Amino acid sequence: MRAVCVIGLGLIGGSVLRAAARAGRQCWGATASAQDAEAAAADGFEVLSVDRALRRASSQDALVVLAVPLPALHEVLREVKQHAPQVLLTDVTSVKAPVDAEIRGRLPQVRFAGGHPMAGTAESGWAAGSAELFDGAAWAVTIENETELVAWREACQLALDCGAEVVPTSAAAHDDAVARVSHLPHVFAAVLAATGADGGPLAMSLAAGSFRDSTRVAGSPPELVRAMTEGNRAALLDALDDALGRIGAARGSLASTGSLKSTIDSGYSARESYAAMAAGKRTEQVVRIPDAGALLQLRELGDQGARVVALDEESATVVVPV
Amino acid sequence: MRAVCVIGLGLIGGSVLRAAARAGRQCWGATASAQDAEAAAADGFEVLSVDRALRRASSQDALVVLAVPLPALHEVLREVKQHAPQVLLTDVTSVKAPVDAEIRGRLPQVRFAGGHPMAGTAESGWAAGSAELFDGAAWAVTIENETELVAWREACQLALDCGAEVVPTSAAAHDDAVARVSHLPHVFAAVLAATGADGGPLAMSLAAGSFRDSTRVAGSPPELVRAMTEGNRAALLDALDDALGRIGAARGSLASTGSLKSTIDSGYSARESYAAMAAGKRTEQVVRIPDAGALLQLRELGDQGARVVALDEESATVVVPV
Repeated sequence: MRAVCVIGLGLIGGSVLRAAARAGRQCWGATASAQDAEAAAADGFEVLSVDRALRRASSQDALVVLAVPLPALHEVLREVKQHAPQVLLTDVTSVKAPVDAEIRGRLPQVRFAGGHPMAGTAESGWAAGSAELFDGAAWAVTIENETELVAWREACQLALDCGAEVVPTSAAAHDDAVARVSHLPHVFAAVLAATGADGGPLAMSLAAGSFRDSTRVAGSPPELVRAMTEGNRAALLDALDDALGRIGAARGSLASTGSLKSTIDSGYSARESYAAMAAGKRTEQVVRIPDAGALLQLRELGDQGARVVALDEESATVVVPV
Repeated sequence: MRAVCVIGLGLIGGSVLRAAARAGRQCWGATASAQDAEAAAADGFEVLSVDRALRRASSQDALVVLAVPLPALHEVLREVKQHAPQVLLTDVTSVKAPVDAEIRGRLPQVRFAGGHPMAGTAESGWAAGSAELFDGAAWAVTIENETELVAWREACQLALDCGAEVVPTSAAAHDDAVARVSHLPHVFAAVLAATGADGGPLAMSLAAGSFRDSTRVAGSPPELVRAMTEGNRAALLDALDDALGRIGAARGSLASTGSLKSTIDSGYSARESYAAMAAGKRTEQVVRIPDAGALLQLRELGDQGARVVALDEESATVVVPV
């Protein structure tokens, strides 16, 4: 099993390090946060400086996982270029197209496939992480026309070793999708929290389950939420416009006819479909990996909701919703 | 202890019946749903026809709890007028001012105080209820200028016996507050679910915690969600306009400057205040009940976030957030 070097030991990076160790892989980490470094070392993990961690990754041909927030990525890539310019590389950043473009532009020799585990962000730091964070979760691993098989396989295998299921997709399709199912919910949570608070202490006293759940992610660290939402600007603007159109239609219908039937019915039907898909049956399908076009075939399946659940030298096992 | 007659044995009514029994109070129920009636009887509860339940309430001077959905209220009030026109009455409907107006208009002789327990609605029916549903929850009991002390005391005592904390407030202030913290979150959940589903199977495959939590209440029975949101039209339109203003500002800022700082920061700050209040310290205060103006004093405290946690002949014990 290939060794793993994790740069950034917050909630996600710290959980990757623990999960890789749980899978029996040799691993080490590095972080600019003295607090996270100390906590990880106290938990028995090997923590090096960023330059030493990268040089060791280069000499061992380890897989490097970039788990720093988007605003810190630029500086870390400078260090990768200096210390490990041909390394196997993946990341866990919540926006994929801009990261992909920056990495390919600045580090043309690295063997890179982007990644994004769909796991919680309401807490942060090493202490909030766990080896189990990704168990059963979706983990996007992106496929572009130029993606090398070895880079994609390594990123995919890490995600599987961490307990996740891999969603093969393009960076652009990923960014459009998460704008709708993650970034828009973060913006709405912030708006709901503020609109509720404007109701004063009585409103806060009467707030119950619907308010608590719908505003939960508004409690995420603002700098992380801004990094991911602002970093996905174009796709988020599209999603916001769709949602604004729906809210405007709801407002108009409520004001003119008193009815919210169309809004409530379509929301109910969408939520039921989502719940049915999340709990529904899936069939297995095997994609032969060495075949030409295997990656593009996987990407097409991923865009239809399929996930990779196992990988070996010859093939990827994919589950497809029925 | 005064007996309790619950009309409507769905999630809320069924839970009230169980919780009143748990508190040692004599109680019986009635429902138009054969399925709920059968299930409640199978669980050992006394279930009568609506007319018999009301006549018995009248003869025993029991407290009648109306726990039917808003659209069914009109018909049930006809039966109350016929069989128990002077009874002690409360309700658990999610909108208070229209219910208050209808009851006072049609049943001038009942001794009425409106109620609204702030407890979950994503499931429905007798089977979804439990005696513990209201433990620690807020339960609004409304106070208008014409509210009789005895009616308010009885509704308040029932809520306390069910394990809840009572928020004394006016029907109008209640409706404004729940428009923001309950009805608006239901509309947003529906919009988020539909906007997410428009992203197709890839978006649904990548949907994780933020989508799951923010759309949870979109899975509530549409007829119940419509009843409460459409029933609170004016207050909900105000809340929708506030929220639309905030989303429009977010959209404008993201499009023009690329920043969501104001939106994300205000949402974070509001959510932190809410979490701090929910977990924060409270001081006790005693309001002497027989004093003139006691109800209005309680209402003023409730509007500042206070809750009644105990009641006896002489006084109400109120906890006030520090």
